[in-house]
Amino acid sequence: MNEAIPATRVDDDEFRTRLRSLDMAPLWDVMATLVSREPRTPCVPALWRYDAVRPLVMEAGEVITAKEAERRVLVLENPGMPGMSRITRSLYAGLQLILPGEVAPSHRHSQTALRFVIEGNGAYTAVDGERTMMQPGDFVTTPHWTWHDHGNESSEPMIWLDGLDIPIVSLFDASFAEPGEREEQQLSRPIGDALARYGSGLLPVDQEPGALSSPVFNYPYLRTREALDALCRASEWDPCHGLRMKYVNPLTGDHALPTMATFMQLLPAGFSGTGYRSSDATVYACVEGTGETEIDGQRFRWGPRDIFIVPSWMRSVHRAGGEDAVLFSFSDRAAQERLGLWREARES
Amino acid sequence: MNEAIPATRVDDDEFRTRLRSLDMAPLWDVMATLVSREPRTPCVPALWRYDAVRPLVMEAGEVITAKEAERRVLVLENPGMPGMSRITRSLYAGLQLILPGEVAPSHRHSQTALRFVIEGNGAYTAVDGERTMMQPGDFVTTPHWTWHDHGNESSEPMIWLDGLDIPIVSLFDASFAEPGEREEQQLSRPIGDALARYGSGLLPVDQEPGALSSPVFNYPYLRTREALDALCRASEWDPCHGLRMKYVNPLTGDHALPTMATFMQLLPAGFSGTGYRSSDATVYACVEGTGETEIDGQRFRWGPRDIFIVPSWMRSVHRAGGEDAVLFSFSDRAAQERLGLWREARES
Amino acid sequence: MNEAIPATRVDDDEFRTRLRSLDMAPLWDVMATLVSREPRTPCVPALWRYDAVRPLVMEAGEVITAKEAERRVLVLENPGMPGMSRITRSLYAGLQLILPGEVAPSHRHSQTALRFVIEGNGAYTAVDGERTMMQPGDFVTTPHWTWHDHGNESSEPMIWLDGLDIPIVSLFDASFAEPGEREEQQLSRPIGDALARYGSGLLPVDQEPGALSSPVFNYPYLRTREALDALCRASEWDPCHGLRMKYVNPLTGDHALPTMATFMQLLPAGFSGTGYRSSDATVYACVEGTGETEIDGQRFRWGPRDIFIVPSWMRSVHRAGGEDAVLFSFSDRAAQERLGLWREARES
Amino acid sequence: MNEAIPATRVDDDEFRTRLRSLDMAPLWDVMATLVSREPRTPCVPALWRYDAVRPLVMEAGEVITAKEAERRVLVLENPGMPGMSRITRSLYAGLQLILPGEVAPSHRHSQTALRFVIEGNGAYTAVDGERTMMQPGDFVTTPHWTWHDHGNESSEPMIWLDGLDIPIVSLFDASFAEPGEREEQQLSRPIGDALARYGSGLLPVDQEPGALSSPVFNYPYLRTREALDALCRASEWDPCHGLRMKYVNPLTGDHALPTMATFMQLLPAGFSGTGYRSSDATVYACVEGTGETEIDGQRFRWGPRDIFIVPSWMRSVHRAGGEDAVLFSFSDRAAQERLGLWREARES
Repeated sequence: MNEAIPATRVDDDEFRTRLRSLDMAPLWDVMATLVSREPRTPCVPALWRYDAVRPLVMEAGEVITAKEAERRVLVLENPGMPGMSRITRSLYAGLQLILPGEVAPSHRHSQTALRFVIEGNGAYTAVDGERTMMQPGDFVTTPHWTWHDHGNESSEPMIWLDGLDIPIVSLFDASFAEPGEREEQQLSRPIGDALARYGSGLLPVDQEPGALSSPVFNYPYLRTREALDALCRASEWDPCHGLRMKYVNPLTGDHALPTMATFMQLLPAGFSGTGYRSSDATVYACVEGTGETEIDGQRFRWGPRDIFIVPSWMRSVHRAGGEDAVLFSFSDRAAQERLGLWREARES
Repeated sequence: MNEAIPATRVDDDEFRTRLRSLDMAPLWDVMATLVSREPRTPCVPALWRYDAVRPLVMEAGEVITAKEAERRVLVLENPGMPGMSRITRSLYAGLQLILPGEVAPSHRHSQTALRFVIEGNGAYTAVDGERTMMQPGDFVTTPHWTWHDHGNESSEPMIWLDGLDIPIVSLFDASFAEPGEREEQQLSRPIGDALARYGSGLLPVDQEPGALSSPVFNYPYLRTREALDALCRASEWDPCHGLRMKYVNPLTGDHALPTMATFMQLLPAGFSGTGYRSSDATVYACVEGTGETEIDGQRFRWGPRDIFIVPSWMRSVHRAGGEDAVLFSFSDRAAQERLGLWREARES
Repeated sequence: MNEAIPATRVDDDEFRTRLRSLDMAPLWDVMATLVSREPRTPCVPALWRYDAVRPLVMEAGEVITAKEAERRVLVLENPGMPGMSRITRSLYAGLQLILPGEVAPSHRHSQTALRFVIEGNGAYTAVDGERTMMQPGDFVTTPHWTWHDHGNESSEPMIWLDGLDIPIVSLFDASFAEPGEREEQQLSRPIGDALARYGSGLLPVDQEPGALSSPVFNYPYLRTREALDALCRASEWDPCHGLRMKYVNPLTGDHALPTMATFMQLLPAGFSGTGYRSSDATVYACVEGTGETEIDGQRFRWGPRDIFIVPSWMRSVHRAGGEDAVLFSFSDRAAQERLGLWREARES
Repeated sequence: MNEAIPATRVDDDEFRTRLRSLDMAPLWDVMATLVSREPRTPCVPALWRYDAVRPLVMEAGEVITAKEAERRVLVLENPGMPGMSRITRSLYAGLQLILPGEVAPSHRHSQTALRFVIEGNGAYTAVDGERTMMQPGDFVTTPHWTWHDHGNESSEPMIWLDGLDIPIVSLFDASFAEPGEREEQQLSRPIGDALARYGSGLLPVDQEPGALSSPVFNYPYLRTREALDALCRASEWDPCHGLRMKYVNPLTGDHALPTMATFMQLLPAGFSGTGYRSSDATVYACVEGTGETEIDGQRFRWGPRDIFIVPSWMRSVHRAGGEDAVLFSFSDRAAQERLGLWREARES
């Protein structure tokens, strides 16, 4: 732990060789790097301007045929970890394009996925026998091991931000996947059923408690935005966050998904926050308004549909422009809370 | 336990006298009555027809002055337990009238209360610094030890059904109460704040888990009815209950209140249920439609605003008339579940 | 709520008659008694001196034959509630005698029972297929709906204190009971199995979480006393309680039983406590040492095997004599905590 | 997901270059490796024979001075991941030597550590103000962010197996550490206090529920072995595991630590198990007896103090020799259960 002590001893090469032959290694060489005083991450701050990336997303629509549309995703790679398919150390993110008429076949996997709709109207995601139609700002989940597929029956392309806990599942060597038997799963419930059944302040009378993932799999932006509006009237602004809400599982009151926390946040026009750090590297997507976020002293200006990240424990400060700004975000805070690892620091 | 064995021994009066002098008593006299094979309750089925009781409620408006409006409640007493101020063995219920212009002063108490609005529009209940306006069919809570008051700023009388856990709190000798310092509590949040903050699928980012009572204190009928409508499309009817939902605490997914469970239920037109028993005596209030409930072989026909009760473990069968019927209900099932006592039996 | 306002109005007898005919009653008559500012209980403090009650217990052994031994219990009745079979408002207690050679047949019921062994050695209780041998100071449970029987294969009588939640189960009209098919249940596990399986800091690898009642059904005094001894070395005395521990369910860390809390407490020699109130009326049984407890200004001196009660919210102060005193106690605190009703007040 | 579809398209190098310049990458290149049908791990089975590694551990005692004793650990590196300081993908393990008279200074860190004592008697670990003396077979924890130090006041060397969740904390970028101000922390409680306070079937009366890590920080082998002995009498053998128990947190009944699950297991003499797979790669340390474990078709024979690992989802079969064998083990199952990832498959 004591990082200050220099490794002054003369080690014996022959000793190390014998260690190696028995699959052993001296801790004293690496201890300081294993247990650091504060997070030391290869993850760096970054911003993807939607204007710049959208043309490439559309171009991918030509490169990848409809048949393989499920793979037609551009991974957002953290500049500090190129080639690693990660936006932060523990999370994957990508932009997925679904063209009119396309269908992605049903499958399921250990990885939990979230979709945050960036543009387009009227494509659907189906989860466990129910479809939901998607609009910009909707937060849609495809939880661990649920059958899911999607398709676009509208006349416009849809683009969403995908977030998955791939690196987490990889670390635990717990990846399982299974393709569906048919292109699209059989629908067993009408559109809107899950939201009515689990999202209206009531639950089925014999509902069992405690599932890890929310049975609500679309949290429509319309409803979320109305809630933010209503809360704005109370005018309680958090000095760091403005007004920040987390999406929750109505069966537990905990985060909607067990590994990834998801948030919606309103910064009122002219908001200028105080410094904040937390141990969960966070991916932000701007929904409305403009503003800037200072991360470790570096300024990132953002507007609608831009995506940016704040790495673990880096100081961030949010500022809104001349109108209210709305930011969606997600991180591994749900997992960190469950494992007792999460912490934050606020400047008052 | 063995109820069949007759108490054949000749007991000694002198022995009993000595026992009594030491505050002791022989168990063998009373054992069978203390631990019965099935619930043996003094509670009987009953129905209060709104047409019959409403005139008396209005008359109470003349008997009791505005100043004492908070006490202007007609207690619904179970016919099997007259003078006990109980509608079932463990619950109190009453009909409360608030006339235009009246205000009931703020207070708080250990007893949890629920209000189910029967008629009137635009009276308010305030709980912990926030007001809610009430409409027929709204389910409003004033949880344990929360400051609450109410008033009627509309031009019509309001009548609601009050439900309280008074007998439960009495059994535990845990009744505390405190009057407010002012007639009305100071308001600190705008109307609609709690519903937006806790009832839209999100929670404040730093919300602590696990409060026993729901922070949502009005579950508007409009929203509940929309959910029932949406779920009707799925057409999954429970053979006993039709479509029955429980009101829940968004922080936990458990019942909205720790002692009293609350339910809303839709019986589709023509529904004819199968027999059902449960250990929670249940108070029903009809919201829409007509129908009948057979309780232990006795038929009770009900229509809008009628109130009826099914005692513990009595067989009940619901039937709906020619249109969809909607029933609100409440019972002590929340407490029974927490204590591990609740059970049910269904006929298939 | 406002208990001070006198009921000054002139009520109309005819109005009351009409109310009564519709099973209704005016709240204004009874409101203050229903919702009191502080607990108002018929329960009074009391002490049963073991020297005085033991002869009557033994005499019951002659009055009641071996065949009906299961009923051979002397109920401890609160002097404020004679004929009610209650030691506090919510709890039943009695002293049960099992003579050598007797067997009480197997049965089960909704009521949860606890046994605290007062005298004798070597009788057994069997719960769900396992026997445990009982010694003085052992706390033995027969949880809700578990098959249980007992017998005495030793050569001395055994007397234990029985505690049951009979009034709670009655209030909820949730009493069910069933006699076993055979005198004694079939044993499926060796003596000591439950304690080894659930009480050694480990649990079976696939143990499901969260049962309401502890799977450990004998908490031997030997082990409890050792723990108290070890903790005495740390010398942290609670000003009210000395050293007070609660028995817990190893599956949850919550009370061992869902309705009744159970405690063991050591008052060091010469301990003189400060005033304490809590909303759970508590039954105490002295295990070792002597002392006195002042309850609402009244002094009760106790020694080994004496039983006394502190009613809800009455001020109590414990004092120990010249040697360490050990008190077992039980109350409805477990139920009150689950329902959100429990509270306490301490004098510092 | 569809791993079978070959990547047939002709990709445009120039397109990829533009993607790269914007920190983006095509998912279609890597999808199959990110989401695999079953765990594909670099982790391989391995066994460390204590006879072979002990001389190197002792030699490290000469290479590393007493002053730096805290770093004197030989890391057990998985042969499939050399240089990674990991025994499985998510866990670190090492063998630590403490010589007589040595003291390791107090510190704390985000990483949770466990110690399983291999040889020696009488060294201590101190956690949060309390010391525990360690014996072979003891399982000792130093939970997340607790102050801990250790020393050896005996006359013999002590060697223990260290297990830490270092790779998990690294993935989440949540590593914090702090050195103590003094060599040894100040002791505030006597030896044995935590075990008596939290490990005897009781808890302090006002204990708050739900801490993530167990307050018991030494689970002595003596007690664990007694429990195994008692359970052996019941003779219920799990076909895969023999008799397998998990160490638990008495405040919750969940695993003793939030990230790492820990187990003790007895295979009766001559036991021959059936095949088993689980998604948690597991580190085993033999305490008593001899036997062999077949892992993915490869046999590993083990005896006292040997250490071996079964990677995620590899089929393992345990067999015991001529006497009862006892195996300690640990894995990331606690974390996987909390995140909803853990699964197992059994051959019947």
